[in-house]
Amino acid sequence: MTKDHGFTAPAIDAIDHGDAFAHAVQAALDAKTKPPGSLGELERLAARTARIQRQMAPSIAHAQVIVFAADHGIAAEGVSAYPAAVTAQMVQNFLVGGAAICVLARCHDAALQIVDAGVDAKLAAHHLLLDRKIARGTASFARGPAMTPTQTRHALQAGIALGDALPPHSALIPGEMGIGNTASASALMHALTGLPAADCVGRGTGIDDATLARKRELVAAAVRAQGRGETAFSTLQRYGGFEIAMMAGAMLGAAARRQLVLVDGFIATAAAACAAQLAPALLDYCVFAHVSAEAPHRRWLEVLSVRPLLDLDLRLGEGSGAVQALPLVRSACAILSEMATFADAGIDDRGAAARS
Amino acid sequence: MTKDHGFTAPAIDAIDHGDAFAHAVQAALDAKTKPPGSLGELERLAARTARIQRQMAPSIAHAQVIVFAADHGIAAEGVSAYPAAVTAQMVQNFLVGGAAICVLARCHDAALQIVDAGVDAKLAAHHLLLDRKIARGTASFARGPAMTPTQTRHALQAGIALGDALPPHSALIPGEMGIGNTASASALMHALTGLPAADCVGRGTGIDDATLARKRELVAAAVRAQGRGETAFSTLQRYGGFEIAMMAGAMLGAAARRQLVLVDGFIATAAAACAAQLAPALLDYCVFAHVSAEAPHRRWLEVLSVRPLLDLDLRLGEGSGAVQALPLVRSACAILSEMATFADAGIDDRGAAARS
Repeated sequence: MTKDHGFTAPAIDAIDHGDAFAHAVQAALDAKTKPPGSLGELERLAARTARIQRQMAPSIAHAQVIVFAADHGIAAEGVSAYPAAVTAQMVQNFLVGGAAICVLARCHDAALQIVDAGVDAKLAAHHLLLDRKIARGTASFARGPAMTPTQTRHALQAGIALGDALPPHSALIPGEMGIGNTASASALMHALTGLPAADCVGRGTGIDDATLARKRELVAAAVRAQGRGETAFSTLQRYGGFEIAMMAGAMLGAAARRQLVLVDGFIATAAAACAAQLAPALLDYCVFAHVSAEAPHRRWLEVLSVRPLLDLDLRLGEGSGAVQALPLVRSACAILSEMATFADAGIDDRGAAARS
Repeated sequence: MTKDHGFTAPAIDAIDHGDAFAHAVQAALDAKTKPPGSLGELERLAARTARIQRQMAPSIAHAQVIVFAADHGIAAEGVSAYPAAVTAQMVQNFLVGGAAICVLARCHDAALQIVDAGVDAKLAAHHLLLDRKIARGTASFARGPAMTPTQTRHALQAGIALGDALPPHSALIPGEMGIGNTASASALMHALTGLPAADCVGRGTGIDDATLARKRELVAAAVRAQGRGETAFSTLQRYGGFEIAMMAGAMLGAAARRQLVLVDGFIATAAAACAAQLAPALLDYCVFAHVSAEAPHRRWLEVLSVRPLLDLDLRLGEGSGAVQALPLVRSACAILSEMATFADAGIDDRGAAARS
């Protein structure tokens, strides 16, 4: 048994940004009928997607939102504006199509699947619901490890299998629902980055000052008591939720298949940060869709040296921010796949030529 | 004849953000299954669109990109990285579907129309091309007024008619093409805002330092010689292009019919700024889609006290940035039109209730 309790991350190819293919993609972008670089982030996104898919004409053939739902022992410590029962109630809302992510996935032509990663309720079968329940909620990380090593491994592996099963040229959009999960993500941030607890804890669904102070103290005390963890696996096991571990796995499984991953807000970033410590090449496949209004998120993105595409003051989770980046990815693919070149269009390219 | 040479802007209703309807819209948003305000900019966009359309369930039934093309006398002074002939060549590229805006409009289900507002070429008839040619290019504003008063009025009126003709619940996305038009927009900014010419002039399609210095001096000298103009009409007449005047008209025509206007980058902002001086309520209907990489754009948006939705380092024009905001507007409408309420979904609303 290794230190990671039998868990091995899948092999992920690093994306080479300086190879012949990368240069060919850049040349193709520069030949399009526009001043070189004038489509900014869309051009960079186009180039990345092309390199990930190894296609000069990249495309998103399938966009898959997967919402991972689970409960958190820490919720019993009073760190959320909502009672834990809301997790299961929201799963029902996902299944009947009334939640934000349902509406937004329909709006942007993305498929939606809901995964019970560990909701503290017996959920009735439904064609959109996948039963991957690890347990009925984690233990409270204020009192000991949130998960057992075996639970952690199972959650990661279930996620990997989901990421692995996507059709070619997918975009994976992992979302989450779990009352208490910003506290879990905050503890993961505090433990993984070493930043002060105060910088890692925000208001989540909208807690008041007293609850915020309590949440900060709980996170700080837990990491003092349990330590930061010697590997990302052990950090995840101490503080993580089932949905966070399963999201991390899904990201790893997708990236191992050279699929694009659109990362949502604070909780999804917690999953990506854990996963990236297990397999650093993961970040080559991640588009950080937006910076959340959950205060510590901006800082965490800085620590990860990633630039979010959008800044829309969102803080809902569910994948609702990540799905907003999907039209931008589609725009990017279309530029590379469909635009005419100066030569095609018979246009005077003096400006571009002058600079090359 | 009035000082605006017979031009009268159409009447535009100001949007009341404090009336009973506005409160009802906010209450509807707060009842949706999410923490109040957690969808940030999307909620604000939903509320605005609802108020503009006077619909509790707003929608974008039709998205219309109109690309206005025209030539500029100032281009002969050597202020662009591309020769003026590129304007007409790009119109052909729009008509055959190879330009960025063609690809992006298709990608986001927007209709596309090209308007010859004053291209310096005889253009063959085409079903996508609308002939509204005022003249074969403006005069150089370095040597006198770019347009005559009559040309200015005709360009504005042609635009108004186009904005007026949109079907109900449209989003108008005005774009432009015109070699030399960043110089025109810079002169308009300098004259309208009174900011130093250096703050109003950028690199456009990608000019070098020497050309940038020359462009700045041309803009500064022109406004010194011709003055800022006593009305927005006269400012537009001195420095504006035919496509800028026609875009301004289209925005006015659309807003007069309570249609949403998605404003693109620097040139479109020049049109919106002129139009907003002719009819200040226009800005209630404008969503400033993005802040351009064209340096003065950010400053102009600040002067207008508007916050752009996106910051993607774009500087192409054509409406390519504005069309990226369309999926966000559709997301916003879907939230208000399709999401369940806490009551619908039978979800414990303790958190929201605690804060109300």
